[in-house]
Amino acid sequence: MKSADYPEPFRALVRELRRLPGVGPRSAERLALWLMEDGERPSALSAALTSARDGVRHCAECGFFCLGEHCDICIDGAREPLLCVVERATDILPIERSGAFRGRYHALGGRLSPLEHVGPEDLRLGELTTRLERGHFTEVILALSTDVEGEATTSYVVEMLAPYGVNISRLAQGMPAGGGLESADELTLARALAGRRQAGVV
Amino acid sequence: MKSADYPEPFRALVRELRRLPGVGPRSAERLALWLMEDGERPSALSAALTSARDGVRHCAECGFFCLGEHCDICIDGAREPLLCVVERATDILPIERSGAFRGRYHALGGRLSPLEHVGPEDLRLGELTTRLERGHFTEVILALSTDVEGEATTSYVVEMLAPYGVNISRLAQGMPAGGGLESADELTLARALAGRRQAGVV
Repeated sequence: MKSADYPEPFRALVRELRRLPGVGPRSAERLALWLMEDGERPSALSAALTSARDGVRHCAECGFFCLGEHCDICIDGAREPLLCVVERATDILPIERSGAFRGRYHALGGRLSPLEHVGPEDLRLGELTTRLERGHFTEVILALSTDVEGEATTSYVVEMLAPYGVNISRLAQGMPAGGGLESADELTLARALAGRRQAGVV
Repeated sequence: MKSADYPEPFRALVRELRRLPGVGPRSAERLALWLMEDGERPSALSAALTSARDGVRHCAECGFFCLGEHCDICIDGAREPLLCVVERATDILPIERSGAFRGRYHALGGRLSPLEHVGPEDLRLGELTTRLERGHFTEVILALSTDVEGEATTSYVVEMLAPYGVNISRLAQGMPAGGGLESADELTLARALAGRRQAGVV
């Protein structure tokens, strides 16, 4: 005798939910059951998905999310003349929320990755130089990943921007806030040591 | 200067995702970012939600999920003449998957709860007696919750079914599989003691 299972559209929903990051088979089923408890729930989530997909675009200038042509940051006239270069649009708000930066951003749309066939022509590098030629930026801050591909991208951008005569900096590397020595890997420790600063000076 | 935020349709999607059980503010944002990375993702999830909402119904007989009028379990002619009464349609598959039961089911659609104004008329009790009058069930197994409201519902159903002269049983109560004594609450221990069985007999 075969054991009963949910109808196919229900199982299709579970499969779709399983694709979400951090959602395993059991929690996908729990989410689907919760959604199916009340017909209003799948409708509301489906409507939110559709309107986010149709309504949210990428800013033509910096690549962040926006409703119209340009995002709130790019049309904000009170920003400092600093340009922070990140890999993805999703990297912008974490920096924005730190409160430590009030300049503008530029999302490259990824990083150089020979293994995944991502070359310089796949990144928004032309848009970056165009902004430097047109705008009045006193400094470019590179906030890319610190792994091998991120470092290669950082080096590439540093070299590419050299002719523009703009100050180029990158994020400090060292111990994460609140982290003990036992939780830091060797490379982080090595970089924290190399970048050590005089105690008492902030 | 105001800190930038995501566009409203994006935040609406985050709010909708936060309603999902077990999804907090940070993971809702993470899910939304993942969904917005690729336009195919919100479309696929939205389509799965819509087709589950429109395609999946409750079986007219037992209340389980189904595509047509009756579910796979109710149209399965090879089931034993046992009827397992549960609170919700979602309680059926866990029992089905245990492999320890191959009868039929009846979901009440909830349980008696004076505080939430759920009375006998709100449960599928008439459908239950109709099935007993019409069908050939040798035993009714009550598999309701073991909290106060579940116990009250069990008592109510036992009394209601008394005139039908059918065997009525309920799930055993005791120690959960794999659980140590230290993890069991006092009521579970009391019920496990009261229901103790001769060692060596299975």
